[in-house]
Amino acid sequence: MKIWQNDTFYLERHESDIPWLKLFTETPYKEMSDAPGEVRMQIYTILDIVEREMIAYYRPDKINIASFGNYLPHLHWHIMARFRNDAYFPEPMWGQKQRESTLDLPDFDTFAKTLQKRLSVL
Amino acid sequence: MKIWQNDTFYLERHESDIPWLKLFTETPYKEMSDAPGEVRMQIYTILDIVEREMIAYYRPDKINIASFGNYLPHLHWHIMARFRNDAYFPEPMWGQKQRESTLDLPDFDTFAKTLQKRLSVL
Repeated sequence: MKIWQNDTFYLERHESDIPWLKLFTETPYKEMSDAPGEVRMQIYTILDIVEREMIAYYRPDKINIASFGNYLPHLHWHIMARFRNDAYFPEPMWGQKQRESTLDLPDFDTFAKTLQKRLSVL
Repeated sequence: MKIWQNDTFYLERHESDIPWLKLFTETPYKEMSDAPGEVRMQIYTILDIVEREMIAYYRPDKINIASFGNYLPHLHWHIMARFRNDAYFPEPMWGQKQRESTLDLPDFDTFAKTLQKRLSVL
């Protein structure tokens, strides 16, 4: 589900128990180094904004950030708010499941609205 | 094993079948957003240099980049050269093993020397 977009990027919510967003470039670059410098800089800015908003809103135990694209070689970044009692912590979300999640998190829509507002200045 | 360092950062080789480096800050920040802006910019620059040198030297099928720190909340970035015949591809290196690796890669020391030279300008 797309929660924000401009001419260069879009941000999707990944279906998960944790707050998990994916940032895609509209133009499908394979690697970060294939993207123009200005696009790379904007990616860093957006990741920074998302990280700060996730921390402010969810107070996670850790932020996780990753760019793989082995299945889908279209540059995208995962940004996840992780909690000690989420299903995989302290493993990455791609690791071994550790437990059933007992998360009770605040409303995603409120978070998304705040984030949209912060990103609207880009 | 440390393969490069300056006053702010050090780069370690992670023991693996694939070319896998870890970039640490000397000062132990928990999250990217805890690091000063200048340090974040230098991290992006170093990741970009490492990615480009990995691509030039190893011709990998994909570069993977990640920052987790759930076990060790000291800001560090993983950067990995991935290959279709590595043990986990297309899964992340933290995922399910897919096969025995049949990689036959060029010498790491030559790569490390080139990288040290590129990073020496920082």
